[in-house]
Amino acid sequence: MSALTTDLYQLTMAQGYWRNGRHLDRASFYLSIRHTPFDGGFAVAAGLEQVVEFLVDLRFEPEDIEYLRSLAGSDGRPLFARDFLEALPQLDLAVSLAAVPEGTAVFAREPLLRIEAPLLVGQLIETPVLNIFNFQTLVATKAARLCHIAAPGQPVLEFGLRRAQGFDGGLSASRAAYVGGCFATSNVEAGQRFGIPVRGTHAHSWVQAFDSEPEAFDAFAETMPNNCVLLVDTYDVERGIEHAIATARMLERRGQRLLGIRLDSGDLLLQSRAARRRLNEAGLEDVAIVVSDNLDEKKILALRRAGAAIDIWGVGTSLVTAAGAGALGGVYKLSAIRRCGEEWWRPVFKFGAGVGKASLPGRLQVRRYRGAAGGLERDVIHALDEGGEASGLDDPGGLDLLVPVLEEGRLLAPLPSLDAAREIAGREVASLPPALQDLEAHGPAPVEVTASLMEQCDRLAASHAPPARSA
Amino acid sequence: MSALTTDLYQLTMAQGYWRNGRHLDRASFYLSIRHTPFDGGFAVAAGLEQVVEFLVDLRFEPEDIEYLRSLAGSDGRPLFARDFLEALPQLDLAVSLAAVPEGTAVFAREPLLRIEAPLLVGQLIETPVLNIFNFQTLVATKAARLCHIAAPGQPVLEFGLRRAQGFDGGLSASRAAYVGGCFATSNVEAGQRFGIPVRGTHAHSWVQAFDSEPEAFDAFAETMPNNCVLLVDTYDVERGIEHAIATARMLERRGQRLLGIRLDSGDLLLQSRAARRRLNEAGLEDVAIVVSDNLDEKKILALRRAGAAIDIWGVGTSLVTAAGAGALGGVYKLSAIRRCGEEWWRPVFKFGAGVGKASLPGRLQVRRYRGAAGGLERDVIHALDEGGEASGLDDPGGLDLLVPVLEEGRLLAPLPSLDAAREIAGREVASLPPALQDLEAHGPAPVEVTASLMEQCDRLAASHAPPARSA
Repeated sequence: MSALTTDLYQLTMAQGYWRNGRHLDRASFYLSIRHTPFDGGFAVAAGLEQVVEFLVDLRFEPEDIEYLRSLAGSDGRPLFARDFLEALPQLDLAVSLAAVPEGTAVFAREPLLRIEAPLLVGQLIETPVLNIFNFQTLVATKAARLCHIAAPGQPVLEFGLRRAQGFDGGLSASRAAYVGGCFATSNVEAGQRFGIPVRGTHAHSWVQAFDSEPEAFDAFAETMPNNCVLLVDTYDVERGIEHAIATARMLERRGQRLLGIRLDSGDLLLQSRAARRRLNEAGLEDVAIVVSDNLDEKKILALRRAGAAIDIWGVGTSLVTAAGAGALGGVYKLSAIRRCGEEWWRPVFKFGAGVGKASLPGRLQVRRYRGAAGGLERDVIHALDEGGEASGLDDPGGLDLLVPVLEEGRLLAPLPSLDAAREIAGREVASLPPALQDLEAHGPAPVEVTASLMEQCDRLAASHAPPARSA
Repeated sequence: MSALTTDLYQLTMAQGYWRNGRHLDRASFYLSIRHTPFDGGFAVAAGLEQVVEFLVDLRFEPEDIEYLRSLAGSDGRPLFARDFLEALPQLDLAVSLAAVPEGTAVFAREPLLRIEAPLLVGQLIETPVLNIFNFQTLVATKAARLCHIAAPGQPVLEFGLRRAQGFDGGLSASRAAYVGGCFATSNVEAGQRFGIPVRGTHAHSWVQAFDSEPEAFDAFAETMPNNCVLLVDTYDVERGIEHAIATARMLERRGQRLLGIRLDSGDLLLQSRAARRRLNEAGLEDVAIVVSDNLDEKKILALRRAGAAIDIWGVGTSLVTAAGAGALGGVYKLSAIRRCGEEWWRPVFKFGAGVGKASLPGRLQVRRYRGAAGGLERDVIHALDEGGEASGLDDPGGLDLLVPVLEEGRLLAPLPSLDAAREIAGREVASLPPALQDLEAHGPAPVEVTASLMEQCDRLAASHAPPARSA
């Protein structure tokens, strides 16, 4: 990613703010989601580490400026002025950021990131910040749903790279899927970059490359005796299982063991039950049954309810492409401005005709209240007063949902590790009220807005239509 | 992307092939799609340039080998053997590739890429090749559908980066959307890297940052008089249009002109018609009406049929995330092997229980036949004989769909430019039979398989169940 990983209008507005002497106004933006995805009751925040890396590394390179210099407007003349392009690489791009920690369970409408920066900078980073946060949060949520259904004791493996939306659609999906609860990925680069456990054995083509399935199975077991899961459906599943049992015997004789078999097509319910019976008859109770084949929440739930004998679920396409949602409706809104030379923040507001298209005004924070047992009770969205203190809360308890992360570009403390984020996600989903955990019919989100913030909205809405222009 | 941008099982199989002395067997793989996406009658091939770049640059770096060395199996011992990891960076990774040119209209089941390489190499690249080709083809197809509905004379702008699936899900989507027919993107990095035209003006936040909408509009027009499209729905659309007209007057006095207004919410049919009337009354017939707001094929078709007054369609999320499909069911199958020391290719076959899960055997090619006016008539999938010549075709006319691109890693000729690919796509979609262009109810794909290839399939299917293992 680069400083040009953004929408052109962020740069045209940047020139506008700069030309109007407004670029150093202090601006407060917040990111929120319009709906929790997949018609579910919650989302799992993810992607903060990549947001922070992007913000800390942000700068304009000479070739970026050169490219912007080459752009022309409708009259063929340059789109960007020379003096602006000379000023752009000199600007201080540092931002302050408060954010929900990765793995936190969150809801629609509440601020999840608050970015305070010079107006020009806060605007410029809208697109990349949304890109990173939207997608990872979407996939972490999908993974949490899948793991919630598959649990307990039936881990979910992510292997979506081949059908992911671009290589980063695979790489960052593997990361987010791990935050959401998957135990491993097939994506080797994700393992290398993020330390996520990697898993994988062989494909149909391995079996095809040998003269017979028994020969292929034995050859695989010999080359990788400590990682042997055999795919049994290249030709005929029943025979494949018999061939896998024969290979298991060969491994036993060498003091190793067959880890599992994999089913990738056909009726997974009948096949898995038949396979379990046959493996048990053969004394191979500890050989796991792994399945794949376009699995998603519905298929896993149906297989579990019908009593399928499955130990590990491999989920690819539906997980990394977030099937059923495709995109998270994350939005990034300007909510307050402190103009250069002024002392006070002005709340700003966007009136919206569509659902969720109106914004909240002010410098925003969320207070999360939990019950005695740690269960999530409610979130209250509120504004900060001029001193930066909570304003309008009726209960001084609870904890701030948005935690300071960057102060003028400086990282305040190391971010939690990926494993810590994964633990948070597991704990958070478990702490939700049962009505919100239900993946098929969930209750309303426990999110409130303080009375004083609602009054502020009403005041600004009443004045939203500015006076008609005087000639 | 790196050599580790792949599934772990490609590497475990690589070690297996190497250990069994099979890694230098010559293998023929082909990529095909199981279904044309979006329930549509065609797909538009895209992504070949990135596939070629990946293949030409492919190599194992020392840190990749170091990472693989760190992986352990179920017994805690190394997953990969030291001798294999020493041999891996020394292997020749060159491949031969024949492919459909970007922009070509293609159908389910037919080979779209044919890769011939040492077995180990052909296997290793399966995942990244699928990742690149699947996603770009999916988005190019979506774009072609959107442009087909919006045409003629109503161009489609892509602006999906903020909700794309990762930054490459935005970048490569912008490229593929351009191949499919979009005229420009908002993604500045895509403009910089690929030379795609970029477009963009301002967001709601620009208007919010000023004391009034007229002040914001005038300020924008002054800073960017040759790129002024005003977003009129921040507060009230009717007032917004009046304010835009006033700004248009200001621009006229300076010898410039307002390019357009943008509507981003509410009833786009009523608003666009009212806006057109009002702009025309004001003598601003040439001010374009641009719309955005979660548009997709259905909404555009409904707005066009109802007589909306829209000049430019901005499409974001649904385009770059390929809403309605999410992933292309592209698969990569081993279809023939010539073992080391042998002279003949052996066709190989995978029996499949699920729809489209069976593969075709042999070294495959497709012959495309066109009518006198250039209209596409039929594609015939066939195998090459040992001399590499077409086998079993009943008509010697037509042209090969798969064109040689790489010969042992060497690029045979420069690839067509992005603009050439875009022209091909436009011509190809126009050349389809009307029944296949219909986006709502299309006819069957005009794809046949030669009788001799079908007989080969039957022979291999009859023998698919290998003999039971003799004790």
